Amino acid sequence: MGDKIQPIYEPLNSSSAIALVNRLGLFTENSVLTCNEIGDGNLNYVFHIADTSSNRGVIIKQALPYAKVVGESWPLTLKRAVIEANALKIFGSFCPQLVPKVYYSDEQLAVTVMEDLSYLKISRKGLIAGEEYPLLSRHIGQYLAKTFFYTSDFYLEPGKKKDFAKQFTNPELCKITEDLVFTDPFFDAETNDFEKALTEAVKNLWSDERLKLEAAKLKKSFLTEQEVLLHGDLHTGSIFAGAQETKVIDPEFAFYGPAGFDLGLYFANLLFQAITRKGSSKEVIFTHLHDVWLTFEAEFSTLWKQESKEVYCKTEGYLEYTLQKIFTDALGFAGCELIRRTIGLAHVEDLDGISNEGERILAKKTALQLGRALIMNRQQEAKIESLTTIVKDQLLAASLS
Amino acid sequence: MGDKIQPIYEPLNSSSAIALVNRLGLFTENSVLTCNEIGDGNLNYVFHIADTSSNRGVIIKQALPYAKVVGESWPLTLKRAVIEANALKIFGSFCPQLVPKVYYSDEQLAVTVMEDLSYLKISRKGLIAGEEYPLLSRHIGQYLAKTFFYTSDFYLEPGKKKDFAKQFTNPELCKITEDLVFTDPFFDAETNDFEKALTEAVKNLWSDERLKLEAAKLKKSFLTEQEVLLHGDLHTGSIFAGAQETKVIDPEFAFYGPAGFDLGLYFANLLFQAITRKGSSKEVIFTHLHDVWLTFEAEFSTLWKQESKEVYCKTEGYLEYTLQKIFTDALGFAGCELIRRTIGLAHVEDLDGISNEGERILAKKTALQLGRALIMNRQQEAKIESLTTIVKDQLLAASLS
Repeated sequence: MGDKIQPIYEPLNSSSAIALVNRLGLFTENSVLTCNEIGDGNLNYVFHIADTSSNRGVIIKQALPYAKVVGESWPLTLKRAVIEANALKIFGSFCPQLVPKVYYSDEQLAVTVMEDLSYLKISRKGLIAGEEYPLLSRHIGQYLAKTFFYTSDFYLEPGKKKDFAKQFTNPELCKITEDLVFTDPFFDAETNDFEKALTEAVKNLWSDERLKLEAAKLKKSFLTEQEVLLHGDLHTGSIFAGAQETKVIDPEFAFYGPAGFDLGLYFANLLFQAITRKGSSKEVIFTHLHDVWLTFEAEFSTLWKQESKEVYCKTEGYLEYTLQKIFTDALGFAGCELIRRTIGLAHVEDLDGISNEGERILAKKTALQLGRALIMNRQQEAKIESLTTIVKDQLLAASLS
Repeated sequence: MGDKIQPIYEPLNSSSAIALVNRLGLFTENSVLTCNEIGDGNLNYVFHIADTSSNRGVIIKQALPYAKVVGESWPLTLKRAVIEANALKIFGSFCPQLVPKVYYSDEQLAVTVMEDLSYLKISRKGLIAGEEYPLLSRHIGQYLAKTFFYTSDFYLEPGKKKDFAKQFTNPELCKITEDLVFTDPFFDAETNDFEKALTEAVKNLWSDERLKLEAAKLKKSFLTEQEVLLHGDLHTGSIFAGAQETKVIDPEFAFYGPAGFDLGLYFANLLFQAITRKGSSKEVIFTHLHDVWLTFEAEFSTLWKQESKEVYCKTEGYLEYTLQKIFTDALGFAGCELIRRTIGLAHVEDLDGISNEGERILAKKTALQLGRALIMNRQQEAKIESLTTIVKDQLLAASLS
């Protein structure tokens, strides 16, 4: 690691977590506090601390110096806690309603103390349980429009943007994505993890040179294109949702990258639901896809017209070119996410949670086919129907429509 | 400026420059030294210090805290001296024969002490005088292949590349390019400087929305695509040449950007000669264009096949895709350079030095037309004939072939 902040780093436990919030004066003096570690991620502790009488609480997130999923053998920089806290503050400044409030952050302890959102549900779990979340995708469309526009060269003075890009250089977490999303699933790599019944499908994918060439281009885009400050891990497990509210959490993968990446990850994680939901409940997911793109497109276009600093933003066709690039990139990144969540190291409950083996294998094969189709056919007109048509065709081919 | 190193910065003069080389022990104790300020750039002092008996010399380059061309009204960071010294060292480690040796650098004084190349000629001046430099473009092709490949994600571990990109963040000098190459010439900006006889041609350019859209895309590429460590200002005035030797100097604009930028600038600065040379002496320039591309392509392909670390470099078609992108980008950047050197703030002697007004205006109009043609038609097969055909067509149309 060689991290300068390591020597005084110490993992929190319930009592030191409570001591921290007391020191910060976040509760009244005579509060009786409870503390539970509720993290289900791979990289962090998450403590929920609540006042037993008022039920008011806060969250303390602490980065661990390794990935929990593989144990201490995979060390990870604690600097990601600083990146996460700073990203929450920046994103929160654009979308205060859509990002948890940060009360305190400490670089040395690698902790962020923030708003308790436990009255909401992680949207992946809610969607799997059949919840509809009618505002979720409109909120995400707004979030993407604002975070993209306000961190791009269309709005920021280029020197300021370069400062941000430097500040959010995030090599270790980017490497996780470079390897686990863009590389390993397309090769016979040790990190891959797939069911035996998928072997033939996986081997076909590994021998598909045309697909690998397109994956290479998408990886290159991820490695080189500093368009906007991305969340970097915007799947449905990084979003709390309720009937009225949406909160985007966990931006520890934040870095300057291609705008389509966040959108693509969100598309893909909705698409797992489009694959696994049955009958008419699929339609809700198509509505989500429409909502996120149309809201994003409208909001981003408004910001572009009203607040751009880049003189070329007045040039005919430049907005359309920009939206087109984001859409095309998003389809490609969505395809990579569908594939890697099916056969790579980190899976999704949407697929793995299907108890009937035949159904689960069919869903996984469909995810692979759809991923491939999106990567290979991403040069589509930037209309949400371009996406939904590809999806419906694949579902039909798999008799899952 | 707010530069921390400012307080102890002081512009050198002949006696302090001589004192510096004496302190460094670069000459024997009893040497009699002469010192001349020979800088003809806009941003720096360049001292040539030589031993009168042996005629051995060294160069001291010192960054000025403002652009000489506009006077003290345009302040510029002194950090560019550090960037230049570090870039010379890195480029020199890949191509020791093609980059001046650095003997010493001092961040506080913003100086770099380096090899004396005054036995060579600045290639722009030599080319204008009709020199042929048969090895020049092969050397530049090698230089580009090595500096691009060894600083790219194809070779470098991504974390190491991100470190370099951070180290070479160069906002102030990039802003000069963003404004003077990509923006101002396409708008009625104060910095522009063109002859009255060009007014109609310039107004046509400013009202050409299709051209401006393409210029916007090229500017976006410059702002966002961190492909390789660029020289950043690779015109023929940044290259010393002789019959056998070539040395690339002045990388103070170095930063991580799109690979095609350096190649495009070199193309464009050869093209001024293709426009202005007469009769059969034009052919030498077409040979240079062939040489630089073919050498680059061959050398880069060899490095790719022998030394890539990126696993996708073995994927069929990825090398061709990469070369195609570099070529297409280079044509576009060449077009921007042709236009900006004709009507923007900083001109070239190739055009301005033509004493006959009619000939000069025709050459300048041709540079504008050719610039436009390259930007609009840059999606060409990556073969050097794609470029030379466009050039010959434009020369023919202007009766300059």
